[in-house]
Amino acid sequence: MTSDAPTRAYRRLSVEERRSQLLHAALELFAHHAPEDVSLDDVAEAAGVSRPLVYRYFPGGKQQLYEAALRSAAEELEHCFDEPTEGPLTLRLTRALDRYLAFVDEHDTGFSALLQGGSVVETSRATAIVDGVRRAAADHILRHLEVAEPGLRLRMTVRMWITSVEAASLIWLDDGKQPDVAELRDWLVEQFVACLTATAGRDPQTAAVVRAALTIEPSDGAVGTLARRVLSLVGDAAHLL
Amino acid sequence: MTSDAPTRAYRRLSVEERRSQLLHAALELFAHHAPEDVSLDDVAEAAGVSRPLVYRYFPGGKQQLYEAALRSAAEELEHCFDEPTEGPLTLRLTRALDRYLAFVDEHDTGFSALLQGGSVVETSRATAIVDGVRRAAADHILRHLEVAEPGLRLRMTVRMWITSVEAASLIWLDDGKQPDVAELRDWLVEQFVACLTATAGRDPQTAAVVRAALTIEPSDGAVGTLARRVLSLVGDAAHLL
Repeated sequence: MTSDAPTRAYRRLSVEERRSQLLHAALELFAHHAPEDVSLDDVAEAAGVSRPLVYRYFPGGKQQLYEAALRSAAEELEHCFDEPTEGPLTLRLTRALDRYLAFVDEHDTGFSALLQGGSVVETSRATAIVDGVRRAAADHILRHLEVAEPGLRLRMTVRMWITSVEAASLIWLDDGKQPDVAELRDWLVEQFVACLTATAGRDPQTAAVVRAALTIEPSDGAVGTLARRVLSLVGDAAHLL
Repeated sequence: MTSDAPTRAYRRLSVEERRSQLLHAALELFAHHAPEDVSLDDVAEAAGVSRPLVYRYFPGGKQQLYEAALRSAAEELEHCFDEPTEGPLTLRLTRALDRYLAFVDEHDTGFSALLQGGSVVETSRATAIVDGVRRAAADHILRHLEVAEPGLRLRMTVRMWITSVEAASLIWLDDGKQPDVAELRDWLVEQFVACLTATAGRDPQTAAVVRAALTIEPSDGAVGTLARRVLSLVGDAAHLL
């Protein structure tokens, strides 16, 4: 069985290895091209195999490969959110955003194509996978906020911020990855603090979360810097204070 | 020609009147049902005409009707943003949001189906229509902020907030329209103020916009109330100030 290996363009892999190799090739292609610009021939060529072999592993063709690649990317993305629940919240968020933005940077074209919708291969299954990632991100944040039963206003705030991070990522990719990733990350952290604090103004549960979080924020960290800048801005409009 | 009118189930309308009547029936249906749950027969029945007549006006069938209804809804939505450029910014935003949220309330099911994606009739044209509304909303806001050449950070902030308003609308519809529309509106205004002020902390153009806007905000308005609440919250964490 293995005697024909040297005469073939590819070495004989186990079913699992082959599947993973094809998936990896597909993921690479879908990361850097819009799905309509990726053909099964491209995947076969990138993996150094024949088109029929791709079909043997993915009888659903491109659509099936796209969804499998998407599922694999979604798993990778969810790992970005893994973060120990200790230390100042803004530092945890900074680290998670660093990983998330590196993922966005790496999967740029595919990320845009997927989230901008209207794609020919978009399906309700693809949408469900993306929604799963959004839910996982929200659950992670709520866990870090240490709220057992988050109310409507807190949940809405977290999900609004997650959506706005997606929007910022898309604009960032569109605008040639400006501003640089470190500034974008710090700014998104500040937006989180601002949104949460605004909600705290009208929601006792969120206010309790913010009060608890502030006690361990360092003075020279994101919150301190933001608070001092905003105070100086609003201080000029004394009639509002 | 007109003698058969009394024997027909519908009076003879001009081409434009008929087209508008069919569109109106379609819009009503698509507003309150997911597109996959609306058939051409439903549209014909709602308009009191035959299915072939619907096809004569919309040879592209349901897809064409859906897109025409969507374009008509998009126009209506863009009118929500019309607002004279005078008076405190938060009051203008409050009025525009009142109209927008009334639209969301009225088109609930169709609004969710459209924005949640994965719909069988979603196309790149539908996505382009929705993106057009988003762009119009952003342009309106930037015009009210009176910035001739908005920089990247200001544009990103405005678009992030618009996306988060969409997210809030969807969650609001999902959660049985809680909290009530007046609270949701005031809260979204506060979120806008918070996001813009956070960006002002690191962007001179946004800071100039905020400073100018604050001078005419009333003390008992959205900004004053938010500023005093946030100060009292952050004031407890004196090490950050």
